Amino acid sequence: MAKVAITLGDPRGIGPEVVKMVLAEPPMGGELVVIGPDELVEEMPVEGIGIGSLEEARDETAPISSVPTVDPFFSTRAKSFPLSIAGSGLLAGRAVECAARLAMEGEVDAIVTAPADKYALNLAGYKYPGHTEFLADLAGGPDVAMMLLAERLRVVLVTTHIPLRDVPQALTIRKIVSVGEVCRRAFRKRFGIAEPRLALCALNPHAGDSGLFGSEDAKIIRPAAEELGAHGPISADTVFVRCMKGEFDAVLAPYHDVGMTAIKVAAFGRAVNITLGL
Amino acid sequence: MAKVAITLGDPRGIGPEVVKMVLAEPPMGGELVVIGPDELVEEMPVEGIGIGSLEEARDETAPISSVPTVDPFFSTRAKSFPLSIAGSGLLAGRAVECAARLAMEGEVDAIVTAPADKYALNLAGYKYPGHTEFLADLAGGPDVAMMLLAERLRVVLVTTHIPLRDVPQALTIRKIVSVGEVCRRAFRKRFGIAEPRLALCALNPHAGDSGLFGSEDAKIIRPAAEELGAHGPISADTVFVRCMKGEFDAVLAPYHDVGMTAIKVAAFGRAVNITLGL
Repeated sequence: MAKVAITLGDPRGIGPEVVKMVLAEPPMGGELVVIGPDELVEEMPVEGIGIGSLEEARDETAPISSVPTVDPFFSTRAKSFPLSIAGSGLLAGRAVECAARLAMEGEVDAIVTAPADKYALNLAGYKYPGHTEFLADLAGGPDVAMMLLAERLRVVLVTTHIPLRDVPQALTIRKIVSVGEVCRRAFRKRFGIAEPRLALCALNPHAGDSGLFGSEDAKIIRPAAEELGAHGPISADTVFVRCMKGEFDAVLAPYHDVGMTAIKVAAFGRAVNITLGL
Repeated sequence: MAKVAITLGDPRGIGPEVVKMVLAEPPMGGELVVIGPDELVEEMPVEGIGIGSLEEARDETAPISSVPTVDPFFSTRAKSFPLSIAGSGLLAGRAVECAARLAMEGEVDAIVTAPADKYALNLAGYKYPGHTEFLADLAGGPDVAMMLLAERLRVVLVTTHIPLRDVPQALTIRKIVSVGEVCRRAFRKRFGIAEPRLALCALNPHAGDSGLFGSEDAKIIRPAAEELGAHGPISADTVFVRCMKGEFDAVLAPYHDVGMTAIKVAAFGRAVNITLGL
């Protein structure tokens, strides 16, 4: 029976609430262990590991309005128990460290992470753009990739949390091929698909439309597709829909928002994010 | 009773086939007039206007493989009747000119355009990034915007057919506000929505996550939202789904592929593209 560690994420966020709701009626078998601030772990209906008290992060002076970044991730808890941003990031980060250690020691078979606030993690000294890179570093730095799933649509991000402005220069043949290979290995090992059909989503509108709208699709994405034996570049207009119809096993998206938009719209709240390659 | 002009688009493409299929069982009332190459207009079950013979564009030497750009838009016709790229663009462009003239003279009430190949249009001397700008120019250059619809999701593109690399500098407060105003006027005039609830989609992942991933969301999109009285910037992850749930009347997308991806995934082949502001 599999044992799964669940981190509670940012204590100001929706993580603790969502985990508690899910644990009230766990959707799967196996043993679950929750990791997070002591007080929050206490409230959970399953076994847990505390990584420190909320008191460590309490900040009576924290003005609520300045607290976090994204409204929908802002729980009601913060209103009654104001926490500092850095303190919250510290508690969120410790939970991830603890979960990763348990996984690497073989104490758990898998990790599920609740949402963290990247700004808070950074203030607390965890200088990662997201869970994906954080976990990769804790695991000794293997090549990893972030995959999002919603039914038949599987999207792997070639670049993740960087400004859109920096995407074109971050997109190299080497980078795309490396992500494609992580993806291919993970499909073989974890999904039992020996020859995954990969499609590369284009960077520019209509895959550059014969060079009218940018050259990266011809100069970078096409050679990478050839090296990988993948399809593409295929316009963002069509590649995700074709994957949803079963034509490909996964789409490699050149940047965060095009891939996330496809997944979120397709899934309407039922998407899952998996880190490949750990 | 409304009279609608339908252009056949690129004669090598799926336009003529799709129009013929639709006209076999027209989904609406009103009078229809088809505009395109003489031979193709002949085949249609409704009244038509020929704008020149396919023979003008015939090119026996055109290697099929080099012909157009995007596979799914490549009809079987081209295999039996090879056409030059520039010649095809010329026939496609003339149909748009003819349709626009009829509309401006009041001969028709609306125009529907079948797909054109932008590369072919350019070779034929129609130097436009797409139908939207082509029609705006024929109409004397009003401010226009491209809106895509799929049920409750309405997406207006702030920038359209430009390389992704050029998006950040093309995105100015002035440009966003201007598109928002075109959108607002069109909603009032054409959709009967006096105070449309507009949301601005962010440029960077998680709307820049407090400045970690780019500054444009804070420096450009937020001031534009304030000037417009619109919501945003809201992360691409969530803004389209929130619109689909009815929270906004339209989303202004900062660039082509994020907006198109949302629409195509949401609509799965049932989306419509409307030019606002003509």
